[in-house]
Amino acid sequence: MFERIDHVGVAVEDLDAAMAAYAGTFAMALAHREVVDSQGVEAVLLDVGEGHVELLRPLSPDTPVGRFLTKRGPGLHHVAYRVADIEATLAALRASGARLLDEAPRVGIRDSRVAFLHPSAAGGVLTEVVQPAVGH
Amino acid sequence: MFERIDHVGVAVEDLDAAMAAYAGTFAMALAHREVVDSQGVEAVLLDVGEGHVELLRPLSPDTPVGRFLTKRGPGLHHVAYRVADIEATLAALRASGARLLDEAPRVGIRDSRVAFLHPSAAGGVLTEVVQPAVGH
Repeated sequence: MFERIDHVGVAVEDLDAAMAAYAGTFAMALAHREVVDSQGVEAVLLDVGEGHVELLRPLSPDTPVGRFLTKRGPGLHHVAYRVADIEATLAALRASGARLLDEAPRVGIRDSRVAFLHPSAAGGVLTEVVQPAVGH
Repeated sequence: MFERIDHVGVAVEDLDAAMAAYAGTFAMALAHREVVDSQGVEAVLLDVGEGHVELLRPLSPDTPVGRFLTKRGPGLHHVAYRVADIEATLAALRASGARLLDEAPRVGIRDSRVAFLHPSAAGGVLTEVVQPAVGH
């Protein structure tokens, strides 16, 4: 169903400090940086093998990532799995009874198509499926 | 420094329920199951591409994963990056000033060699480096 781990999403308060760790100490290459208004975040993608770390800074406290930071502090926010056909994946998940947060794909970072599953569908883990745009 | 995301570690209270999601709904293949006494967990590895999901059930509440569950509930516990030479990686991290929880590698699941970094070294994320045993 899932091709591989596409990325882990990390909620941070200070993008520059997090970049010092991931791009500096860990020497991950910066792949992309984007304000994703629909998700209320400024996001940075860093390469690690074929996957990525996605650093997420909330645009305001009143966003999903902002509320996560207030409640839990910085750290792992979600995991995303790459899929070849997001509609087929969502249909299969729906047929299995998995609880979805997004019934249909929406546009994510780098023009990917993404959908989130409720943590109750994945052992307490906020889980994203992502079909990258052609070329990514 | 890191070759790729090796796995995400997920703290769970009920391994069978988590397996129903990951091995059932998500159809990830079971790769390995082991009681890792040194870490106080029963762990299940599931395949996703070249990486894994590692489900972790604490052997008692008085273990790192047990305390995590008490404090935060089930969910993402750590992320692990695969490295080719764990001693060289730890030396480079130490030289950069990154705070380590393990100064030397210890034996992890499937006879891997592992070490943990303090979350403060990685944007709040408990981070593991893992050099798999030959053949994994």
